[in-house]
Amino acid sequence: MLEKINLKAKIDRKMYKTQKEDLITRLGTLQRQAKSLGIPIMIIFEGWDAAGKGTLINELTVPLDPRSLIVYNGRRQLSDDEIKRPYLWRYWTKTPAKGQIVILDESYYKELINSKIDNNYKKQLMYQEANEFEKTLSDSGILIIKLFIHIGKKEQKKRFESLESHQETSWRVTKADWKQNKNYDEIIKKQDRALELTDNESAHWTVIEGNDHYFAIIKVMDTVARLIEEAVDQNKNTPEIELHSLITETDDPYRTPVLEGIDMTKTLDKEQYKSELKINQEKLKMLEYEIYRKRIPVVLGFEGWDAGGKGGAIKRLCENLDPRGYQVHPTAAPSAEDLAHNWLWRFWKNVPKNGHIAIFDRTWYGRVMVEPIEGFCTAADYNRAFSEINTFERQLTDGGAVVIKFWMNITKEEQEKRFKEREDNPYKQWKITNEDWRNREKWNQYTVAVDRMLLKTSTEKAPWVIVEGNDKLYARIKVIKSVIEAIEKKLNEK
Amino acid sequence: MLEKINLKAKIDRKMYKTQKEDLITRLGTLQRQAKSLGIPIMIIFEGWDAAGKGTLINELTVPLDPRSLIVYNGRRQLSDDEIKRPYLWRYWTKTPAKGQIVILDESYYKELINSKIDNNYKKQLMYQEANEFEKTLSDSGILIIKLFIHIGKKEQKKRFESLESHQETSWRVTKADWKQNKNYDEIIKKQDRALELTDNESAHWTVIEGNDHYFAIIKVMDTVARLIEEAVDQNKNTPEIELHSLITETDDPYRTPVLEGIDMTKTLDKEQYKSELKINQEKLKMLEYEIYRKRIPVVLGFEGWDAGGKGGAIKRLCENLDPRGYQVHPTAAPSAEDLAHNWLWRFWKNVPKNGHIAIFDRTWYGRVMVEPIEGFCTAADYNRAFSEINTFERQLTDGGAVVIKFWMNITKEEQEKRFKEREDNPYKQWKITNEDWRNREKWNQYTVAVDRMLLKTSTEKAPWVIVEGNDKLYARIKVIKSVIEAIEKKLNEK
Repeated sequence: MLEKINLKAKIDRKMYKTQKEDLITRLGTLQRQAKSLGIPIMIIFEGWDAAGKGTLINELTVPLDPRSLIVYNGRRQLSDDEIKRPYLWRYWTKTPAKGQIVILDESYYKELINSKIDNNYKKQLMYQEANEFEKTLSDSGILIIKLFIHIGKKEQKKRFESLESHQETSWRVTKADWKQNKNYDEIIKKQDRALELTDNESAHWTVIEGNDHYFAIIKVMDTVARLIEEAVDQNKNTPEIELHSLITETDDPYRTPVLEGIDMTKTLDKEQYKSELKINQEKLKMLEYEIYRKRIPVVLGFEGWDAGGKGGAIKRLCENLDPRGYQVHPTAAPSAEDLAHNWLWRFWKNVPKNGHIAIFDRTWYGRVMVEPIEGFCTAADYNRAFSEINTFERQLTDGGAVVIKFWMNITKEEQEKRFKEREDNPYKQWKITNEDWRNREKWNQYTVAVDRMLLKTSTEKAPWVIVEGNDKLYARIKVIKSVIEAIEKKLNEK
Repeated sequence: MLEKINLKAKIDRKMYKTQKEDLITRLGTLQRQAKSLGIPIMIIFEGWDAAGKGTLINELTVPLDPRSLIVYNGRRQLSDDEIKRPYLWRYWTKTPAKGQIVILDESYYKELINSKIDNNYKKQLMYQEANEFEKTLSDSGILIIKLFIHIGKKEQKKRFESLESHQETSWRVTKADWKQNKNYDEIIKKQDRALELTDNESAHWTVIEGNDHYFAIIKVMDTVARLIEEAVDQNKNTPEIELHSLITETDDPYRTPVLEGIDMTKTLDKEQYKSELKINQEKLKMLEYEIYRKRIPVVLGFEGWDAGGKGGAIKRLCENLDPRGYQVHPTAAPSAEDLAHNWLWRFWKNVPKNGHIAIFDRTWYGRVMVEPIEGFCTAADYNRAFSEINTFERQLTDGGAVVIKFWMNITKEEQEKRFKEREDNPYKQWKITNEDWRNREKWNQYTVAVDRMLLKTSTEKAPWVIVEGNDKLYARIKVIKSVIEAIEKKLNEK
């Protein structure tokens, strides 16, 4: 691709001036339109050193309203928070909200090229993850614009020399820069390969011929304008989809039931509970240090029926742990900020650092339970959600994480009993609301959704553990033991 | 997934009878509807041995019109034609035409589970290819229904014993069957993993609880009916897209030109041509035997301007080759049968066997040249085509093939000269039609399309070779030398 490109593209100064004036007006208008339609835009700048990315970004941003614009510098030193998480974390957390433009001055693409990994499988995974990332964003309506600023070997050399010759700029040219120029013919093949592997349906690359700086400025501005225009047009022409519940009780008479096969009679007597609790909490505490030492991240998700015992189980799980090693993330209804981002954004934010435990009290599985039942998402969103979830969790386990999801299961009768107890107990009244009773009326719809969820998202590396929860004591021990078992299995892998 | 499934699902005989009568009528009606809408349907049956796949397929097909139905048995011995081609070839050639139902009684899925490959990278590639295959088919409107017939370990054992106890059926139980039953608990994990890795957005799995045969029959029929119904509804509600040319001359003023950078003055004098031709044709002939011996398939694609010299170059390329080792596939306008299939079907059919050379005179690149220019495909088709092409070619190179594409380039002036020569020469008049002159009027549109095509589909493993074709002698030698070089590079890899 790159080697075939003719770098002689030029524009004369007069043309440059008129074109640029036009583009400044156009970009300003388009940004306002995109903002009012709530289109999030992510623009990635990549390319050779000294290709002029910095200046091009400056030129592009001149006509844009800075209040809905963020530029991230990808060349800075990574923070500890970033180094200790999957490499996509730092990009997930920077994804644009509705109406926002985010510019990445170098990104994962640069990391892919520079990566020293020579294991085919791992390398392919990294590329796969980048493409999956872009697909997930694009599917949720984020416009991704990828620009590669290309200059020739001679041009690059000339620029380095010119920078070096001026006292104020000479510090900018490093040994690594000269090395890139020296190995240009080799590196161009790597760049090419990376462009090839990441030019996907969701986000195509545009190569900007950068030898003539004026041409490059116009082409960058024009490309961005054209792609925003397309997105604006498309967005205007997409009919609003009317939302409605996607799951009916009689959804499918021959569906595969999972919950109905669970033995709900399991119990544990109090004495045994006490001793098991003590032993296993101790064990888990030791393992908490062990995973810290080995830098293994652990992700535990809790879902279940209302009053299914999530809170109690989480409490016993953490009771004895070192609080520096874990964090509980309660998941409530999404905030306005959450809703302005891709739906997975708020969960990616809380992905644990290596060596830490993240406990999610309710999780991303709302996307395939409450959302389709209440009609908060489209049928297409719901259909995509299963692979989006499996991809998300696979990316975590690919990154070395232990991932388990718990389904705290109780019977409908047991739920009624617990609801009533809560109403009668002044200390627990806060735990029960009218919404709980309303959700209970949808028990059968939830059963359909949960059965499907358990079937579609229980994977080898990120399994569901179904907890027979009618007896709270049994349930709590099963949760702790399952966590211990999963961590021990992971430690034995190493 | 499988391990969580409760296999107690049952249906009583009375219910079975009424349901089945309903389903027979429904399926018949739906097949007619799908046929009249031109929806192609591919149904895959997988599952345990003795799960009853054969009977289930028979039951399903009873109400269907056999004239638009084909059942393929995946358990037969593979033919030589199949063994010597990429494993997806045998499925590509079986994909349904519009209005047709194809049932695969076991498929690539079974191959994936049984595959002995333990190289992570290669295994992942196989799964990736299966998912890519289904995506490409589904994107072009093929409905894919995947059914996994699940039975328990005990049930399987019972069935094997019952089969063995009757003289007429005892031959059906093999040692491999008993081995599967013995290792059931291990194999179920493999099956699970395969289901997990192939449950994609384009084609979800439905697990059929097979312990109760009557239940399984009803669930299979109901699932197929429901999914066809959905496809019919969706198809009815999709507005017809009006086709129009997708590429205008002024498509993008800042597009990246490729063709204009080519040095069109290259020539070769006649003496040198003669000697180079002789030497290189000899060399290529030796290499033809070498690739046959090493079982390397070679795919050569020829595209270029009308009168660009494709025919002459192909002639000199093959002149001295052993005709048993190569085949030339001319690509004309697609036939009705071609149009009834996914657009890549007709090219997949001609993928060469290992050790053979396939030469395509015009290729799958019509999809990104004549089709968008003449308005024969939708914008979505065109946008998808680039990744579909790259995926197709990557699957060939992953399978060990040498893939090169030649762009035979001439200037507009040279083309005019050649057209006129053809008109004046009674032996060549057949080569020039009014259509050629009409295409010539679209030179600028073609330039835009070709530049984009060269940029987006020149990959490391399947590169474009741009041939400076104004001098025919130079062009022919460049083609032969490029083929030699690519084959030699491949041979050195091994």
